[in-house]
Amino acid sequence: MERIGLLAGEGDLPLIWARAARKKGREVFAYKLVEKINPLLEESADQVKSINIGMLDDLIAGLKADGIEELVMAGSIDKTMLFKGIPLDARFAALLAGLKDLNNDSILSAIVNEFTKEGIRVLPQSIYLEGLLAGHGILNSLQPDEQLLSDLKYAFKMAREIGRLDIGQTVVVQNRTVLAVETIEGTDEAIKRGGRLAGPGVVVAKAAKPGQDFRFDLPVIGEGTLNTLIAVKARGLVIETDSTFIIDKENFIKRAEENDIVVAAFREADLQG
Amino acid sequence: MERIGLLAGEGDLPLIWARAARKKGREVFAYKLVEKINPLLEESADQVKSINIGMLDDLIAGLKADGIEELVMAGSIDKTMLFKGIPLDARFAALLAGLKDLNNDSILSAIVNEFTKEGIRVLPQSIYLEGLLAGHGILNSLQPDEQLLSDLKYAFKMAREIGRLDIGQTVVVQNRTVLAVETIEGTDEAIKRGGRLAGPGVVVAKAAKPGQDFRFDLPVIGEGTLNTLIAVKARGLVIETDSTFIIDKENFIKRAEENDIVVAAFREADLQG
Repeated sequence: MERIGLLAGEGDLPLIWARAARKKGREVFAYKLVEKINPLLEESADQVKSINIGMLDDLIAGLKADGIEELVMAGSIDKTMLFKGIPLDARFAALLAGLKDLNNDSILSAIVNEFTKEGIRVLPQSIYLEGLLAGHGILNSLQPDEQLLSDLKYAFKMAREIGRLDIGQTVVVQNRTVLAVETIEGTDEAIKRGGRLAGPGVVVAKAAKPGQDFRFDLPVIGEGTLNTLIAVKARGLVIETDSTFIIDKENFIKRAEENDIVVAAFREADLQG
Repeated sequence: MERIGLLAGEGDLPLIWARAARKKGREVFAYKLVEKINPLLEESADQVKSINIGMLDDLIAGLKADGIEELVMAGSIDKTMLFKGIPLDARFAALLAGLKDLNNDSILSAIVNEFTKEGIRVLPQSIYLEGLLAGHGILNSLQPDEQLLSDLKYAFKMAREIGRLDIGQTVVVQNRTVLAVETIEGTDEAIKRGGRLAGPGVVVAKAAKPGQDFRFDLPVIGEGTLNTLIAVKARGLVIETDSTFIIDKENFIKRAEENDIVVAAFREADLQG
């Protein structure tokens, strides 16, 4: 079996990715970047090790020692780590010092560059996960009225703008007004805040930024987000066609419908007219 | 004395404006748009009446009956009012229905248009308040190091972008990462959230949006915001030269300095190089 590496952050995506890759006949070596990893990953990967993202030399040496030539990055990393003094080796410190800003994408791009220089290729997260991509249009059989459709489009547009600025992926909207913008606190916290400010009826958009590097940070939604949408009595969710994963997609869309939440997947062209 | 109207929202600005206009020899008729008005306004204006912003016909008829031909709008209005069912007359409802979006500026522009049509001119908020405008450069004698200066510039740039999108005026930044974006919850809540996420050392920017209409919604900061900055142990505040009011400016800048908070005022040209 051809071996592939998985740099695993939080959330369900690393587990789902590992299972899918194994199904396709790959041997999966997982490297835990964070403490809070899905425990099932231990069973679904061929090997699981903890590594420290800040010790870049050790990390790369470890990957090479394991014979990793291809790698996928999946799951989220709480970037507040970097503000709370995790140990960094000289290589990682030099890498950070050379960046024009410390946004997620800048840091991840620089890390990917280091891997590439060392002969380790980073593949797109969507490899083996094509089935989780969102589709296009209104995904359940609910019929949004004109106002809701207008909020869905507005939210999608604003989520892309916020992504373009590299601030975050998620916005919460009601009556064509932005009520919450996600930064590093995560999608669910942002949804709760928007819900508190506006009451029932908000619309949530999560979108990749224009020109997103598909090797990291593709938007993902799953049961946790759906539970939050239900809790704040949201009316709609809009995600981006071809670049947002829905974990357990069929069930997600069905349960959203049962709770009167329109699930829409748009692309940029849908914003015209 | 020539009479002038004041549509008064929350905060200290209506009071300060009324005092400044009286000092310049104007007779000030204040109209309270919100319950929570500074109680000192009662003494500082020649007349104070409560009005309902949603009853636009009555409001305009009232202004005309009082002989108001010039008007200033000052203070903030909690726009969540509009989501919580205040009574709207047919004129206001028609006005809202005709808008492309329900952002602050769209609503305020439409209201200003209605006034203008009726022969009531809306003047810039800065009239009589030129002394509160921010100045330019580092306003206290603290010397920001390179990293802090870089955060101040980045925060200022992002605040302008967020303004351009008509989301809000304030962002909270640390290490060139946006930690909080203000929407309708207000500046202080946004600062507290950013502080919670990042710990001490954040930088806060408050900026008018590019092309801001100076007749409404100019950014204002004062003692409350300074107390919040001190509470979260912020390292810097950056505002916009020529379009941000600092209430009690000298004292504000001095007290910020005592608490090691750099106060900077930039304009767009400062972002180059």
